[in-house]
Amino acid sequence: ISLVVSNTVYPYYCLFSCHVLQESLLSSASGYSNYRGILNWCVVMLVVSINIFFTSSDRYGILVDPIQVVSLFLKDPYNWPASCLIIEHCVNNVFFVFFPVALQGTISETTGTFLYLVNLTTLLFFPSATVLTLTSITPVGGAFALCVYTILFMKLYSYKDVNMWCREIRHTKARTLTPVHTHVSYPGNLTHRDIYYFVFAPTLCYELNFPRSPRIRKSFLLRRLFEMLFFIQLQIGLVQQWMVPTIQNSMKPFQDMDFSRMIERMLKLAVPNHLIWLIFFYWFFHSSMNFVAELMRFGDREFYQDWWNSETVTYFWSNWNIPVHKWCLRHFYKPLMGRGVNKWVAQTAIFLVSAFFHEYLVSVPLKMFRLWAFMGMMSQIPLAWFVGRFLRGNYGNAAVWISLIIGQPIAVLMYVHDFYVLHYVSQS
Amino acid sequence: ISLVVSNTVYPYYCLFSCHVLQESLLSSASGYSNYRGILNWCVVMLVVSINIFFTSSDRYGILVDPIQVVSLFLKDPYNWPASCLIIEHCVNNVFFVFFPVALQGTISETTGTFLYLVNLTTLLFFPSATVLTLTSITPVGGAFALCVYTILFMKLYSYKDVNMWCREIRHTKARTLTPVHTHVSYPGNLTHRDIYYFVFAPTLCYELNFPRSPRIRKSFLLRRLFEMLFFIQLQIGLVQQWMVPTIQNSMKPFQDMDFSRMIERMLKLAVPNHLIWLIFFYWFFHSSMNFVAELMRFGDREFYQDWWNSETVTYFWSNWNIPVHKWCLRHFYKPLMGRGVNKWVAQTAIFLVSAFFHEYLVSVPLKMFRLWAFMGMMSQIPLAWFVGRFLRGNYGNAAVWISLIIGQPIAVLMYVHDFYVLHYVSQS
Repeated sequence: ISLVVSNTVYPYYCLFSCHVLQESLLSSASGYSNYRGILNWCVVMLVVSINIFFTSSDRYGILVDPIQVVSLFLKDPYNWPASCLIIEHCVNNVFFVFFPVALQGTISETTGTFLYLVNLTTLLFFPSATVLTLTSITPVGGAFALCVYTILFMKLYSYKDVNMWCREIRHTKARTLTPVHTHVSYPGNLTHRDIYYFVFAPTLCYELNFPRSPRIRKSFLLRRLFEMLFFIQLQIGLVQQWMVPTIQNSMKPFQDMDFSRMIERMLKLAVPNHLIWLIFFYWFFHSSMNFVAELMRFGDREFYQDWWNSETVTYFWSNWNIPVHKWCLRHFYKPLMGRGVNKWVAQTAIFLVSAFFHEYLVSVPLKMFRLWAFMGMMSQIPLAWFVGRFLRGNYGNAAVWISLIIGQPIAVLMYVHDFYVLHYVSQS
Repeated sequence: ISLVVSNTVYPYYCLFSCHVLQESLLSSASGYSNYRGILNWCVVMLVVSINIFFTSSDRYGILVDPIQVVSLFLKDPYNWPASCLIIEHCVNNVFFVFFPVALQGTISETTGTFLYLVNLTTLLFFPSATVLTLTSITPVGGAFALCVYTILFMKLYSYKDVNMWCREIRHTKARTLTPVHTHVSYPGNLTHRDIYYFVFAPTLCYELNFPRSPRIRKSFLLRRLFEMLFFIQLQIGLVQQWMVPTIQNSMKPFQDMDFSRMIERMLKLAVPNHLIWLIFFYWFFHSSMNFVAELMRFGDREFYQDWWNSETVTYFWSNWNIPVHKWCLRHFYKPLMGRGVNKWVAQTAIFLVSAFFHEYLVSVPLKMFRLWAFMGMMSQIPLAWFVGRFLRGNYGNAAVWISLIIGQPIAVLMYVHDFYVLHYVSQS
């Protein structure tokens, strides 16, 4: 009512302030970028689509089978040798790393480093040897075990580095550089409690004093738990109901090398694969990591940055997986730079190491060395150059999305095809 | 390289600034809202989906038929009586409105207002009578003609109002209120050129001096033209390939009143209907209106606001269609308020008038009075109350999306079902 002062005044108000020179919000010239609602739209559309998908599955019938999931990890559900071995070995390994550090005061730096290197090498080679030799480990179970070991490898490497840096500070005279708000200082951090907190915390970079959140918010914890349970079910359901039939349908064109059909099948696989990847991203990097962090009162929740806006390939890779990116920067890139290595050489080296680990995590569980994952990661370098050189703004962003949507199903189909040919065609 | 000062300094840097107390971006607590990239994702997914849809249409075959579209507007493509009549009548009507205004100096205010009312009433009833009596007009052609007439009605109503306000200003002593930067003042605006500019300009509110953009940006114009052509094709294609088969499949359950099947079909229709509505929104409110505005150097491009973030139903209705909202506010809501009408009564009155026009634009072309559209619009009032009262933030936003996704296909199915029963079942 405040707008209308009296019956005669409002016409003047209306007359002269009706149109203003301005751009539409969706024009990039407007500079507007608040699309929070689109995120809710995605969630609503997801729920509607799932409803349709499961109420009208007249094409293949309902293929979702929770028991089948268990059999992916274990060939014989009553016999868990691999999992038990893995858990036990992990616990042992943490001890193996802890002792050289704790003993560093009594043994020499060189002996300590040597013990470390032995342990870290074991951490990579023992599980891969186990996975390759034990026939009772399925590809999914093997991949899971190797992921756990790789994470542990990175964590313990960081633990070793930081404690080494602490000793360097003690030896130099620059002690005044230590910030005053540090609660625990070396060697006060060398406790079992501290290393186990770090092993379970959702980060790969060790720090003496992690920022802690003031309290556990129960409603936040419950919502993340609900999301974790819902999205894991959804992922399994989508893989069984949508991806597996699509992959099975695409085996024939791939064997016949029928190119137009291959492209059609690849595009058809791209949609479920991409959606599952997006759900996986949210499930792992938002729900699960926030759940663990909330439970442990771990304060730093930056598990991802705004990679959805990335206009270059490099921006995507350095923002979608912050724990790994932080680790690479702190324990690989900066030490290399510190030794005077060229910036571009260091970046290429990161992509090489990353490509190696991608290949390691795929080839060993499948017991099949094809280098598709390695080549997929290495192809990011020319792609990054191309996008950075020729595409800007929304076009660059669209190119990143296309490379994600199209690139992944190509790699998936390559491995599945080779696995299929190796195991089913040769037998028949 | 600036980060690494020397070989010994970087460890301290890395050691103490690795983790910071912060929330994840996707948590609403972070306050982050830049999701511009998701918009590009939608475009890329749309293109991929279209590719899949048209390369693998093995279910119904390709149903897209551009010739069929023409026959929607005209039963006999060689005989255009309706369209010709409409165009001619529109031109005449503009003259009918223009003359009373131009003559206002010589004839009395009362005579002028009377001539107006006659003309504006004709503008609503003549076309509806034509559509109802002429059998050569199809429902789509009739709806199009009525939309054109309704837009013209609103424009000429605004033209009349503003010129009346101008005369009021001249009669009162408040001439000093006229802003100095006004280029044209009453009655200098009463020219044919001025009224035709307003008739074709993408706004419903008349103003003596519209803000003008400095020049026609050719690349902007071409991009909007390309979008217009692409999205109109896409809409037609999606209706023919996706919506029509889905609606045809849903006729049987609706006749048998099989409720579980009805809900399944309704959900199945919701997805294509919603996508087509979104494409229509972009096509009409962004591409087409910006194209016309750029061509006419019309400066105010605010054709929509950020309705995708709307957390209440009221916010959605007042932000998704700014030309109509602006008109309602300026020529209906504020005059009512100026006469001392209660705020809630005025708002309900707007919904009532809006519901009348929705019904008018659907029932007359279909020659079938069912009040579904009227009830659909009126049901927004209790919905708005419910959402505003019980839901906040992301939950409110999700509720608005759900009402959009579910509400529209219900209304569409109601009309299609009744139309089908009336025209096909009664004949057989």
